[in-house]
Amino acid sequence: MAVVSLLTDFGARDPYVAAMKGVIASRCSAAIIDLTHEIAPFDVFEAGWFLRSVAPQFTGERETARPAVFVAVVDPGVGSGRRILLAERGHHRYLAPDNGLLSLLPRRIERMYSVENRAFFLPGESTTFHGRDRFAPVAAALASGTPAAEFGPAIDPGSIEKLPYEPPSYDTSPVIGTVVSVDRFGNLITDIEAGRLPAVGHVVLGRHTVTRGATHYAEVVDGPFFLTGSAGTLEVSLPRGSAAEMLQIARFERVEVHVGS
Amino acid sequence: MAVVSLLTDFGARDPYVAAMKGVIASRCSAAIIDLTHEIAPFDVFEAGWFLRSVAPQFTGERETARPAVFVAVVDPGVGSGRRILLAERGHHRYLAPDNGLLSLLPRRIERMYSVENRAFFLPGESTTFHGRDRFAPVAAALASGTPAAEFGPAIDPGSIEKLPYEPPSYDTSPVIGTVVSVDRFGNLITDIEAGRLPAVGHVVLGRHTVTRGATHYAEVVDGPFFLTGSAGTLEVSLPRGSAAEMLQIARFERVEVHVGS
Amino acid sequence: MAVVSLLTDFGARDPYVAAMKGVIASRCSAAIIDLTHEIAPFDVFEAGWFLRSVAPQFTGERETARPAVFVAVVDPGVGSGRRILLAERGHHRYLAPDNGLLSLLPRRIERMYSVENRAFFLPGESTTFHGRDRFAPVAAALASGTPAAEFGPAIDPGSIEKLPYEPPSYDTSPVIGTVVSVDRFGNLITDIEAGRLPAVGHVVLGRHTVTRGATHYAEVVDGPFFLTGSAGTLEVSLPRGSAAEMLQIARFERVEVHVGS
Repeated sequence: MAVVSLLTDFGARDPYVAAMKGVIASRCSAAIIDLTHEIAPFDVFEAGWFLRSVAPQFTGERETARPAVFVAVVDPGVGSGRRILLAERGHHRYLAPDNGLLSLLPRRIERMYSVENRAFFLPGESTTFHGRDRFAPVAAALASGTPAAEFGPAIDPGSIEKLPYEPPSYDTSPVIGTVVSVDRFGNLITDIEAGRLPAVGHVVLGRHTVTRGATHYAEVVDGPFFLTGSAGTLEVSLPRGSAAEMLQIARFERVEVHVGS
Repeated sequence: MAVVSLLTDFGARDPYVAAMKGVIASRCSAAIIDLTHEIAPFDVFEAGWFLRSVAPQFTGERETARPAVFVAVVDPGVGSGRRILLAERGHHRYLAPDNGLLSLLPRRIERMYSVENRAFFLPGESTTFHGRDRFAPVAAALASGTPAAEFGPAIDPGSIEKLPYEPPSYDTSPVIGTVVSVDRFGNLITDIEAGRLPAVGHVVLGRHTVTRGATHYAEVVDGPFFLTGSAGTLEVSLPRGSAAEMLQIARFERVEVHVGS
Repeated sequence: MAVVSLLTDFGARDPYVAAMKGVIASRCSAAIIDLTHEIAPFDVFEAGWFLRSVAPQFTGERETARPAVFVAVVDPGVGSGRRILLAERGHHRYLAPDNGLLSLLPRRIERMYSVENRAFFLPGESTTFHGRDRFAPVAAALASGTPAAEFGPAIDPGSIEKLPYEPPSYDTSPVIGTVVSVDRFGNLITDIEAGRLPAVGHVVLGRHTVTRGATHYAEVVDGPFFLTGSAGTLEVSLPRGSAAEMLQIARFERVEVHVGS
């Protein structure tokens, strides 16, 4: 049985997510899982980074993982000419508008399609809610075993929209990266992969220099410190407080990692 | 396998929804789906309009849709003499307190029952949480195939409580309707069905007149505009901002649609 | 099919819950149910009381209840030496860090294990996210039928961490208890079991004395009143308003119940 997981900026209060679930649940027996619906409205980067973070847990390295269908709808361009993308890797599939959301996926996409076959869309569909009218019925059909090629033509994976994101270079000193998210605990999560660094000396964030490192949160009782976070990237944290608030650092700010002993 | 979907004003933080899920999940193998639990406390209209918006996606037009059991618990009268209603249409069922919540459903209910058979309720039930003690075990029994008539006597569908809501009349000019919800994007959603209007000239909301129309959100880059929303009704939107805030319009305000060219 | 239910302080916006779901859903076919993810960050008491409140609905008194696997991750000590506990009662299991969370469970735990077998953990696991790297794969293995003893050594249930919580004594007059939670409606929920009291005369909360009692919420139209809440304990409520705000009472405040006629 496939796993259909949903990622949107629709929030919990409006009927949009429920409508998508209705279309999916009434048409197939896949498990339906919420990734999040609390993406900030229209924040394609946040959605893309979220998907990048969690997709590997669903697809795993294991051949035995259940087929995953990711449905990511952060879609300010709904109803315009933007394409709907269907990406395929192994027996897993990703559906998203062609607005850069899929450009952050860490792994190579094997095949990419443009979803255009109207036979799979809801009859009488709207121009304002493709999540319900196109994404959901296509997801249900994918979960039921319909081959990806039935939904539209194969396209060049290199032709999709990209977000203006540059991964860190590990050849420079210091290594320069980006704060890619701030979590509910106020941890500042960067894109600098700890495994690719020699020993970290200190971390510079805005006007602040963080010199203390740790291996887990409970190790430090006061003051900001850096550690390797759950994504394998460098993270700056504050014991039982918000590092983001204390240091006044927000997403997209630059971070420098200086090699040290 | 049936689909049991839950709609409440219980929020995400308290144990009420989880308790209902425990009763259902331990007693049947139905898929359990959250519609929303963020209905404003005691807001029966919001719950009823939400259910009206999403139920058709679950029940579809298709004979093949999985059996749906809707459980809607916005229930300020819990423990009083108010009835619990079980509405049936085809092989789909709706459970809700008799407080008007079901009166907004767009489609004809075929059979209506009053849920009274205590054999289906939890032993030692409370007077304060029928969601867990009555609705949940009845939903589990429905999902397991128990016929509706076993839960209590058939009643006249015309005898249920109604909300003081009047749908628009399409015979007048202008057509007068109501803002029935404001979504997280600040879109003002009305109950005026676009398909029943000739060309829309302009829309009047409070002191404002909206003269620009569009077919999808991304078409307009500034200023408020009207379009046909995902429910098929007229909607007033603002590009990447809240029309509700800009125009200072809230739910239940009157909207006038003037026919034009 | 087992039911895996998740209780965390991870919130709805970050990718942590989704990552846990990915590990579980890709490895087993259990139903995955959200209890809540809105526990206040690091609030072990809130998590423990929540679990205490809802676990009986999943496990029931019924031999026929589906196997339940509870995964409770409120874990400020992640990566430190704190143990991961696996508690067993009948065919139901509870996973939580050894920080007191499980000490509030109302029923006798039959067997307790320390989860230490690294063969069940994700390869390359982090020191910051055991929810994904240890709890989730262990939950999936439990849901797939792996016996509890395979995860680590049996330990003395009396050796686990306890929270500094004292249940009420029913021998004193007045009976002294605690406000254990405040729900979204502003109800003040105490730990005093109504069934163990003779008739309640009045309730003292801070500077306030509540003299009116009721059997259900809709019975009273103004002013605070007490009733037996859904947990079977005494609760103080305000009609369509927040008793907590009106009386300025928060969690952990003392409550006195005076016996009366």
